Amino acid sequence: MKNSLKITYFAIFLMLLFTLSSANAHAADTVAGNKDAAHVRVVFQVSDDDAKKWNLTLNNVKNVQQELGAANVEIEIVTYGPGINMLKFESTVSDRVDEALKTGIKIVACENTMKAMKVGKADMMSTIGYVPGGVIEIIKKQNEGYAYIRP
Amino acid sequence: MKNSLKITYFAIFLMLLFTLSSANAHAADTVAGNKDAAHVRVVFQVSDDDAKKWNLTLNNVKNVQQELGAANVEIEIVTYGPGINMLKFESTVSDRVDEALKTGIKIVACENTMKAMKVGKADMMSTIGYVPGGVIEIIKKQNEGYAYIRP
Amino acid sequence: MKNSLKITYFAIFLMLLFTLSSANAHAADTVAGNKDAAHVRVVFQVSDDDAKKWNLTLNNVKNVQQELGAANVEIEIVTYGPGINMLKFESTVSDRVDEALKTGIKIVACENTMKAMKVGKADMMSTIGYVPGGVIEIIKKQNEGYAYIRP
Repeated sequence: MKNSLKITYFAIFLMLLFTLSSANAHAADTVAGNKDAAHVRVVFQVSDDDAKKWNLTLNNVKNVQQELGAANVEIEIVTYGPGINMLKFESTVSDRVDEALKTGIKIVACENTMKAMKVGKADMMSTIGYVPGGVIEIIKKQNEGYAYIRP
Repeated sequence: MKNSLKITYFAIFLMLLFTLSSANAHAADTVAGNKDAAHVRVVFQVSDDDAKKWNLTLNNVKNVQQELGAANVEIEIVTYGPGINMLKFESTVSDRVDEALKTGIKIVACENTMKAMKVGKADMMSTIGYVPGGVIEIIKKQNEGYAYIRP
Repeated sequence: MKNSLKITYFAIFLMLLFTLSSANAHAADTVAGNKDAAHVRVVFQVSDDDAKKWNLTLNNVKNVQQELGAANVEIEIVTYGPGINMLKFESTVSDRVDEALKTGIKIVACENTMKAMKVGKADMMSTIGYVPGGVIEIIKKQNEGYAYIRP
């Protein structure tokens, strides 16, 4: 009798443990997907050949970092289509791009676009990163819970 | 023996209870995050200095309200960058903005932009609202489950 | 005594079963909402009267299909506002639109816009689809877990 009681209590204990860990896992998911106020994740799309948009995007990044703290935000700028001109070495905003890179954000160019436009890495700023496809990168980031901003 | 049986059944009962309540909590989350057909939430971004875009945005809002019922939608228009001109008191769409505000939607200007452009509240329509940072507001809304439209 | 042990073990077994099935349900949800690498879903918004944007959008679709396989992606192009010109029968990209439709994607025009612009289905390509409201369609798709791209 005493033995079976012990086992029963052990069962209840295990049950609570599983339920709580499941609840935790769920909470963690929600955060990852969506609701973490302390850790903002955002992907910026640059697909226009428009220096005003490039500057606006870099201003946006700066504002988000200043308001939330650079350490609390994960920011990625994905350029594709005519937007890759933002990251060419002769770009009018190359200094600002380098400055932004130093704050720890990711800034990438779309290799699909580069092939289509016959642009090589030698034409691009040496400090930037690359992704095989800009659109797929943006989709992936949204699926990971990043907010999407197209300035 | 009978006692331990009771406890065991009680354990099974508790287990079912926890499992069901966990399933409910999860379903509720899904709705809050995403899938409530009856209650649409959407944030519109206006970041262009382009009266055509402003009118398009206001048309979009009207259509959504007409189709779903103004009471069933939570709509916020966030203007930032050159888009804040939409909400200046001399804006060509100020009458339409006031009309939209009367339907209960939120229309805000970005204070970061206003500082950068040296624009004060005296330059803006008296009926609108403000947010410290337009981009952060849009990110926050997306994290709360709002859809994002950039007309 | 032996009997109560059996029942207790049965309780533990049931508990594990429920916990696992709950975990599975949760995983399935996550996939449906967001994270299925193998099955990408994306809605493209075309709201500009700009043939360059139309071509960029069609390039984006092609790249996503080539990289992930057309069978693994659900793509919808929603045109509204001045963007519906992309789908008029005299559109400069009508051949490319037809080509894209043959790959199984959905391309639709907004009937709200058509009413407002006094454009009838006779003015449009015969192969496309329609939605009552373009913006509501885009919101709905985002709520279903589609990523959003505005080229």
